[in-house]
Amino acid sequence: MGVPTPKQFCPILERPLISYTLQALERVCWIKDIVVAVTGENMEAMKRIIQKYQHQRISLVEAGVTRHRSIFNGLKALAEDQPDSKLSKPEVVIIHDAVRPFVEEDVLLKVVTAAKEHGAAGAIRPLVSTVISPSADGCLDHSLERARHRASEMPQAFLFDVIYEAYQQCSDYDLEFGTECLQLALKYGHINAKLVEGSPDLWKVTYKRDLYAAESIIKERISQHICIVMDTKEDENHVGHYLEEILKNELNHVQVTSGALCPASRDLEQIILEQCYNYVCVNVMSSDFEETRKLLNMLEESNLSILYPIVVISVYFLDYKSVPFDEKMESLIQIREYAKEVKKRNILLSGLLIYFPQDEQRLQASLRQGVTIIATLIKERNSGLVGQLLVA
Amino acid sequence: MGVPTPKQFCPILERPLISYTLQALERVCWIKDIVVAVTGENMEAMKRIIQKYQHQRISLVEAGVTRHRSIFNGLKALAEDQPDSKLSKPEVVIIHDAVRPFVEEDVLLKVVTAAKEHGAAGAIRPLVSTVISPSADGCLDHSLERARHRASEMPQAFLFDVIYEAYQQCSDYDLEFGTECLQLALKYGHINAKLVEGSPDLWKVTYKRDLYAAESIIKERISQHICIVMDTKEDENHVGHYLEEILKNELNHVQVTSGALCPASRDLEQIILEQCYNYVCVNVMSSDFEETRKLLNMLEESNLSILYPIVVISVYFLDYKSVPFDEKMESLIQIREYAKEVKKRNILLSGLLIYFPQDEQRLQASLRQGVTIIATLIKERNSGLVGQLLVA
Repeated sequence: MGVPTPKQFCPILERPLISYTLQALERVCWIKDIVVAVTGENMEAMKRIIQKYQHQRISLVEAGVTRHRSIFNGLKALAEDQPDSKLSKPEVVIIHDAVRPFVEEDVLLKVVTAAKEHGAAGAIRPLVSTVISPSADGCLDHSLERARHRASEMPQAFLFDVIYEAYQQCSDYDLEFGTECLQLALKYGHINAKLVEGSPDLWKVTYKRDLYAAESIIKERISQHICIVMDTKEDENHVGHYLEEILKNELNHVQVTSGALCPASRDLEQIILEQCYNYVCVNVMSSDFEETRKLLNMLEESNLSILYPIVVISVYFLDYKSVPFDEKMESLIQIREYAKEVKKRNILLSGLLIYFPQDEQRLQASLRQGVTIIATLIKERNSGLVGQLLVA
Repeated sequence: MGVPTPKQFCPILERPLISYTLQALERVCWIKDIVVAVTGENMEAMKRIIQKYQHQRISLVEAGVTRHRSIFNGLKALAEDQPDSKLSKPEVVIIHDAVRPFVEEDVLLKVVTAAKEHGAAGAIRPLVSTVISPSADGCLDHSLERARHRASEMPQAFLFDVIYEAYQQCSDYDLEFGTECLQLALKYGHINAKLVEGSPDLWKVTYKRDLYAAESIIKERISQHICIVMDTKEDENHVGHYLEEILKNELNHVQVTSGALCPASRDLEQIILEQCYNYVCVNVMSSDFEETRKLLNMLEESNLSILYPIVVISVYFLDYKSVPFDEKMESLIQIREYAKEVKKRNILLSGLLIYFPQDEQRLQASLRQGVTIIATLIKERNSGLVGQLLVA
């Protein structure tokens, strides 16, 4: 990867890659324990990650010098014969890589079910490139038929006894140079693992470009739901609803929900619980920060921003007739101070001032540019622009 | 990839992927002709791409229904026996994929040199996953030793006669189901191709995540060089040079060059010729757009923005003592109109207003925030924020 940090600790949106993988396993309620093999030098860092991102059901074991030795250490921790362990021996164990953060419950269930039936199972993918075998002098010896081979990916699952016994029997050579757990189950347990088709998202973050790809995928996923919080009633006809309509039309892959900031505000609490990471606070009636402040308080209390940065855009309209530009600007510039404050809590606040000309067509253009800016801020999710007052 | 557009035509920074690959081949001066196999339905689109991005030395041939048939069509166009062709038969031919845009001259030279000596050569990479062979019932039959196998990538190179004769001899089955040109050279020419280690950047854009990765790599590459254009002399001591210094310190992987806009302006012409895609125009003496306008004119005349969007940030300082905030703001808001104009030419213009407090420490903080904003605009290169006046 060309960076000094081990790849599982490389940050994506400022959070280490391994935390995303733990999160993916954690949300599967039928996974009882998660055992992570960590080298001694990274143990403290790993403990801090678990605490900071509030991961649950994690046990740490010391990693070995090779992949197989690390897995063996993890299995030993789960075996019954460890007296001081809080873990109990499972029927089925899943083996997964720290650098495959996008594993879904669906494929986990498939490999576990197949392992129960066959003793072992693993996810596979079609080969992207032809595989060849070189001769000793660096020339082509033969090429393999692409259709007859598959790439072995993760997750894999095993009846615990099958894989634990295989590791207990296997040679030092296996532990040093082997890479494939399915092969151990075959060699020592005589079990032909069931192969399960995985999705492309199972790929292993290996190169720097994979970190870029992972960041883009994560940004895209948390940008699929925008909540609009309006400071007026739903049945009133005004420019805020006009903006909402255009937002819904232009961002047609995105779910747009309306929240309310009335004293009870059940609605909005529900939306926060559903893990929406994008809020557009539309201020039609006032040009102060009261509504935005209420929203920010709710978000802070929810702890939602522990895992991902939340984007909040506070929208105002500039009607030349009522308030002069300079005055409005002067009052809104305070947003910088609020933004600095909430950035500490991983909330990215920006302001958006939308011109409100009388001319219908020009208003349309203003609103559409406003939507472009909102979409950009949500898509990029870059903390470098917090506190800015953008103008559409 | 899950999108309707064929992947070689998917846009990256609004330009189709294949144009990046053509650009990579084109800049290698010893490649005489580039033959592209295109399906009938995409032929017109391909012609428009060649014209729009001013690609040179390209000939188009009709693609076949399989990979091997397309390559064969390309070879036929290069063979001498085509009477109406402007192409002449080469000694060595390179075969490459449209969806591998990051091929470097270095590896092209290596495969060509090896092909001259051995008759055939191809780039290889270590396997990322273990390769397995499934049995008919979808279980593991055996797994291949990872260290003994390689992924066959592109580019590959051949003595023209070797590969052309192989294609002429090969069976319909080969043409329909084969994927590996090195295999044809082995089977019909009895040539064991030389294998050349390639860089990770040779990978094939296959999934949506690969497009994300490619976009991030391209953005990173064109962000490595920033040119600062100052409206004052070099030997004067002022806030502009202070900003330049912080820019150099904070962006320590980035080359920062100073350009000049004096009437002769040899300097800046040179920097534009060297394909710098990032300009920070620092206005210390004035608060108008004269300097920025001169720079924009030079950039427009250079046609540099045909291939990549250029980022231009026009920086002003706000000294409370001399000009009141509102007045400065009002005059600078014109930047929106300029930005709209130059965006049509693929130039992304934004303004940046940096507070200039008397207090040394607060000035430092202002300038550092300015640098963060500059870095963000250059890194993201998003047209959604053009014409904004950002405040540090």
